[in-house]
Amino acid sequence: MNIVILAAGMGKRMHSDLPKVLHPVAGRPMLAHVIDTARTLSPSRLVVVVGHGAGHVRTAVAADDVTFAEQAQQLGTGHAVMQALPQLDDSQPTLVLYGDVPLTTAATLKSLVEEAGNSRFGVLTVEMPDPTGYGRIVRDAAGSIVRIVEQKDASEAVRAIREINTGIIVCPTGHLRRWLSTLRNDNAQGEYYLTDTVERAAAEGVEIVSAQPAALWETLGVNSKVQLAEVERIHQRNQAQRLLEAGVTLADPARIDVRGELTCGRDVSIDVGCVFEGRVHLGDGVQIGANCVIRNATIDAGAQVQPFCHIDSAKIGADGRIGPYARLRPGTELGEDVHIGNFVEVKNSQVAAHSKANHLAYVGDATVGSRVNIGAGTITCNYDGANKFRTVIEDDVFIGSDTQLVAPVTVRRGATIGAGTTLTKEAPADKLTLSRAKQMTVAAWQRPVKQPKQ
Amino acid sequence: MNIVILAAGMGKRMHSDLPKVLHPVAGRPMLAHVIDTARTLSPSRLVVVVGHGAGHVRTAVAADDVTFAEQAQQLGTGHAVMQALPQLDDSQPTLVLYGDVPLTTAATLKSLVEEAGNSRFGVLTVEMPDPTGYGRIVRDAAGSIVRIVEQKDASEAVRAIREINTGIIVCPTGHLRRWLSTLRNDNAQGEYYLTDTVERAAAEGVEIVSAQPAALWETLGVNSKVQLAEVERIHQRNQAQRLLEAGVTLADPARIDVRGELTCGRDVSIDVGCVFEGRVHLGDGVQIGANCVIRNATIDAGAQVQPFCHIDSAKIGADGRIGPYARLRPGTELGEDVHIGNFVEVKNSQVAAHSKANHLAYVGDATVGSRVNIGAGTITCNYDGANKFRTVIEDDVFIGSDTQLVAPVTVRRGATIGAGTTLTKEAPADKLTLSRAKQMTVAAWQRPVKQPKQ
Amino acid sequence: MNIVILAAGMGKRMHSDLPKVLHPVAGRPMLAHVIDTARTLSPSRLVVVVGHGAGHVRTAVAADDVTFAEQAQQLGTGHAVMQALPQLDDSQPTLVLYGDVPLTTAATLKSLVEEAGNSRFGVLTVEMPDPTGYGRIVRDAAGSIVRIVEQKDASEAVRAIREINTGIIVCPTGHLRRWLSTLRNDNAQGEYYLTDTVERAAAEGVEIVSAQPAALWETLGVNSKVQLAEVERIHQRNQAQRLLEAGVTLADPARIDVRGELTCGRDVSIDVGCVFEGRVHLGDGVQIGANCVIRNATIDAGAQVQPFCHIDSAKIGADGRIGPYARLRPGTELGEDVHIGNFVEVKNSQVAAHSKANHLAYVGDATVGSRVNIGAGTITCNYDGANKFRTVIEDDVFIGSDTQLVAPVTVRRGATIGAGTTLTKEAPADKLTLSRAKQMTVAAWQRPVKQPKQ
Repeated sequence: MNIVILAAGMGKRMHSDLPKVLHPVAGRPMLAHVIDTARTLSPSRLVVVVGHGAGHVRTAVAADDVTFAEQAQQLGTGHAVMQALPQLDDSQPTLVLYGDVPLTTAATLKSLVEEAGNSRFGVLTVEMPDPTGYGRIVRDAAGSIVRIVEQKDASEAVRAIREINTGIIVCPTGHLRRWLSTLRNDNAQGEYYLTDTVERAAAEGVEIVSAQPAALWETLGVNSKVQLAEVERIHQRNQAQRLLEAGVTLADPARIDVRGELTCGRDVSIDVGCVFEGRVHLGDGVQIGANCVIRNATIDAGAQVQPFCHIDSAKIGADGRIGPYARLRPGTELGEDVHIGNFVEVKNSQVAAHSKANHLAYVGDATVGSRVNIGAGTITCNYDGANKFRTVIEDDVFIGSDTQLVAPVTVRRGATIGAGTTLTKEAPADKLTLSRAKQMTVAAWQRPVKQPKQ
Repeated sequence: MNIVILAAGMGKRMHSDLPKVLHPVAGRPMLAHVIDTARTLSPSRLVVVVGHGAGHVRTAVAADDVTFAEQAQQLGTGHAVMQALPQLDDSQPTLVLYGDVPLTTAATLKSLVEEAGNSRFGVLTVEMPDPTGYGRIVRDAAGSIVRIVEQKDASEAVRAIREINTGIIVCPTGHLRRWLSTLRNDNAQGEYYLTDTVERAAAEGVEIVSAQPAALWETLGVNSKVQLAEVERIHQRNQAQRLLEAGVTLADPARIDVRGELTCGRDVSIDVGCVFEGRVHLGDGVQIGANCVIRNATIDAGAQVQPFCHIDSAKIGADGRIGPYARLRPGTELGEDVHIGNFVEVKNSQVAAHSKANHLAYVGDATVGSRVNIGAGTITCNYDGANKFRTVIEDDVFIGSDTQLVAPVTVRRGATIGAGTTLTKEAPADKLTLSRAKQMTVAAWQRPVKQPKQ
Repeated sequence: MNIVILAAGMGKRMHSDLPKVLHPVAGRPMLAHVIDTARTLSPSRLVVVVGHGAGHVRTAVAADDVTFAEQAQQLGTGHAVMQALPQLDDSQPTLVLYGDVPLTTAATLKSLVEEAGNSRFGVLTVEMPDPTGYGRIVRDAAGSIVRIVEQKDASEAVRAIREINTGIIVCPTGHLRRWLSTLRNDNAQGEYYLTDTVERAAAEGVEIVSAQPAALWETLGVNSKVQLAEVERIHQRNQAQRLLEAGVTLADPARIDVRGELTCGRDVSIDVGCVFEGRVHLGDGVQIGANCVIRNATIDAGAQVQPFCHIDSAKIGADGRIGPYARLRPGTELGEDVHIGNFVEVKNSQVAAHSKANHLAYVGDATVGSRVNIGAGTITCNYDGANKFRTVIEDDVFIGSDTQLVAPVTVRRGATIGAGTTLTKEAPADKLTLSRAKQMTVAAWQRPVKQPKQ
């Protein structure tokens, strides 16, 4: 099958410099959603018709299986499909989709394509509560589609029809090629309408068939930020429903955002206000607290993420205890039963099993062994203003509070670092290492007094 | 009265290892909600029929006033009630409830029980917009219930009836015992249905009466995570409504979660996105900022909690100023007008009136006096890797920034600790104590330059 | 025009010590919203009738163009307007509004006022799905309003009327004065009703005209916290709709709160759960992450604010990178491309272009130059317990981690401060300055062992 996706529109009502089809739904361009769905039909040709912001659109969705056709001027949907004709294979039918209609499901398209087969004209139709403004599907007594009548041309009787044309069609490519060549633009907008091919098909006695989506929202197009937000919410509601049906416990299905792919083991629960981006996997029994933001992460079985965590490109081992207010940055890999507590940032570091950094710390570019205790206020000084260096902390180390580890530096197995130490050289194994000035008291000292306001 | 609660089901559609009735609504097992409601009726016998995960269920809801009956095989609701019969008192009627129908109100059950009295058969019925699949309540011309007809047996006329059987019944226990003994399982599922007792009652001329809940949601059962989420949202909406009616200002009733008991004084306001767990009391005029998580806490009059606070098992005194981003852990007790600011963690500590820890600090296992100022970056080193020790800070102390208090240690009244001090011994009263290396400048020093990437 | 706003009610059902009209919608008293709307009509007299909590109400909305009339006893709406009569100009009509009906739009009031002109009696009416309890608008065959009939006096036919009186009226002031003087309180409540003036107008042959609001919610009054929350949500939904229509991308229009004025450039996007208060401006391309709280701030083009930021009375320069978990307090002014990272607090400080404080720091009362790197754990010790002092950090300075800058202190251009330094005196330009005790190892040291629990 050939698939043509129309993606040339500017989207003036979006009030944006971004081409309309690149506005994101669930964090990805609308067009990318349509391409993904198209791919499920295994098309031999997948042509995206670009126009406004063509360069930007090509870059955003470039892939081996996608070709582009350029519609320099936007002269209507029929004109747009014409631009793709040179790339289509006449031996297979052509399906036309829209880059700003992102929620159509693969199942719906499959049923349309199957209904049409190789010789029929298929049109996706839908019943609308209020069809005003849409082209009505007129059927004969036998239920066969005989034509599509636009709002302005519709009689009272036709206006009462609630089944409308979604614009998504599939038909034999040779026919399409011929019909498009006969389209005229002698209408109010001066455009060539793809819809007019239905009339041609009817005139030639080509059978016109239809399929309907499972839900009205599959056919919603996006022309404004209001509609973009509506489509986003529908998509998120669908994602939440999918998670619930898979057995995930959601505290509030209306307050979870999944922008990418969230996969979950058994007995996972997710509290209110969480956002998931990219690929996230939550293992069996994982609990995610309220108001977490998690992106591209793997969280193993039994781990608990408390509220207000921000996790990006990190791995959390089994039975981890994370947060609240933990920030795991890219390159963080935590072993089993690692505890990262409040106001702790970990970046580009490996922390082995049973180690803990429970309070106010920065662990960056570090390799941390097992059973290490990193005290409150510990900081790895990994950056000298020009270069970054690694800190190595071996197994069973105890780092006292407020220690600075000036990288490159190594703390050997079993060492203890005294509170407040600035560690600039290797700390030997099993011993106490520290840098500390003597505690003294200034007896004669007077407390400052409040100065008058200037 | 006897009350039997059916709680033996597996809940296959929950996709969970947890027995169905233990899935939480508002943080507590569904079954616990049903038991709570049952208790308001002061039953003399309260029997929970357990089956799947029986041990787990028994442990979760064990109490002096609850007994258990085991239903080894799940052979239907009638069979389940049979297992409880040995524990029932024939001199009083028996009410049958369901562990997976958690929202029925005490008022509704009371009206049903009163309607039935000691000699009638009472059934809780409800009108459904779409009754498909439920047993219909068939009444005679006088409005008396004559039978309950299941969906599959219902004529067109009966299917049009929208009043359905909720399954909650109450009836004389002697009758129930006899009727149950005559139940048959010659139906599609091969189960013994409690509902069939209605027919027995009718046949014997026992009067069948009904009561209706105030709202449809009272009768919702939970068989999937989708339904669990629906029930959770209804419960939360009810909790929010209750708070609003009591005079609490909620920025958004759809964005507050109460999992436990939240009691509020006058003129309390709660911003969006807050979660309350366990027992929380907010005194007069308390303001809770956006996105806070508060569990088992008492917050006294006039206190302000700013956004992003995480409070667990803590007391906040009158006029406290907490947050944003303050974390109060178990055992925190703050006096009047205490200020705990951003990125400050307090644990197992008492802080007396007018003291402040406004920035980036860890106060753990400490006793802090009045009018103490704890500088930014201060850390109580309460853990030596093996044991925890207390820090004592007396009244009117000023702790300079980035001080480590190595416990056990005491700072005497009126003492000042210099910035950056590691305090290992007692600091005397009214004097300046510090540990500090001399500031020096390395004239010949050269800044590092960026090394080429390897 | 004269405008009278009735604002004397106690609002018993609010369960609050605050006078009803001062309860906030979108962070401002309901009465202030009504006054704002009134001002758009450029009234020559704007009289607020106060009663319960009169002093508090006067203070809350005091302004040059507002005068007050006191209604010592609450004897009805007609009585309330009587108190304002001495301040009204008879040469112009009088419009009566309500301090607890905050959402009426200026457009609606303008259409009512224009409809009424100088000689007619205008009443704002609205169709309600369920008009029970409201005064019905009775019209003659020609559609002219002939009278308003209260619920208790309404016949079956009149009760079926769904057009009701909102209470908002406008009429010639001389007439109003005369009609009010003839009102009687011989009704169940013993009150003088403003509505009764309609009857007087009809009796005198004054033409009665009407206008309708664009939406029912414009006429909602607030008598309880339940209604306050409803009105708040409608207002927030309207604000979100306005932002979307202006081209702002909102991840969820139901999860943004705007309490004040939020203006946005082109291609701004705002993630879920954000709260905006006061005046906030977001420049072109600004992105606000999830769960931020932003008050009185200017954020310049291209800046990115990551999740969990708390920003109050601050300016963020172009292309800034803020958060997650950054707290910007009043007086923060950040130049272009400044990075403020996690667990960093900035207060009353200027930070010039390209400077960074990425981790766990407190920057208070500081002047920071360009290209400065403030290491993790750095703290400006700006407070000695009595007075606050400034820290000056010149261009190109590198502050090592965990440094304390004891103000007043200056770090000269290009200086480097070693990790863990307590800086008490000026650091010279281009050199390394530090305070550091020598690192040492205690060979004989034994780790503490766990003591038995007491």
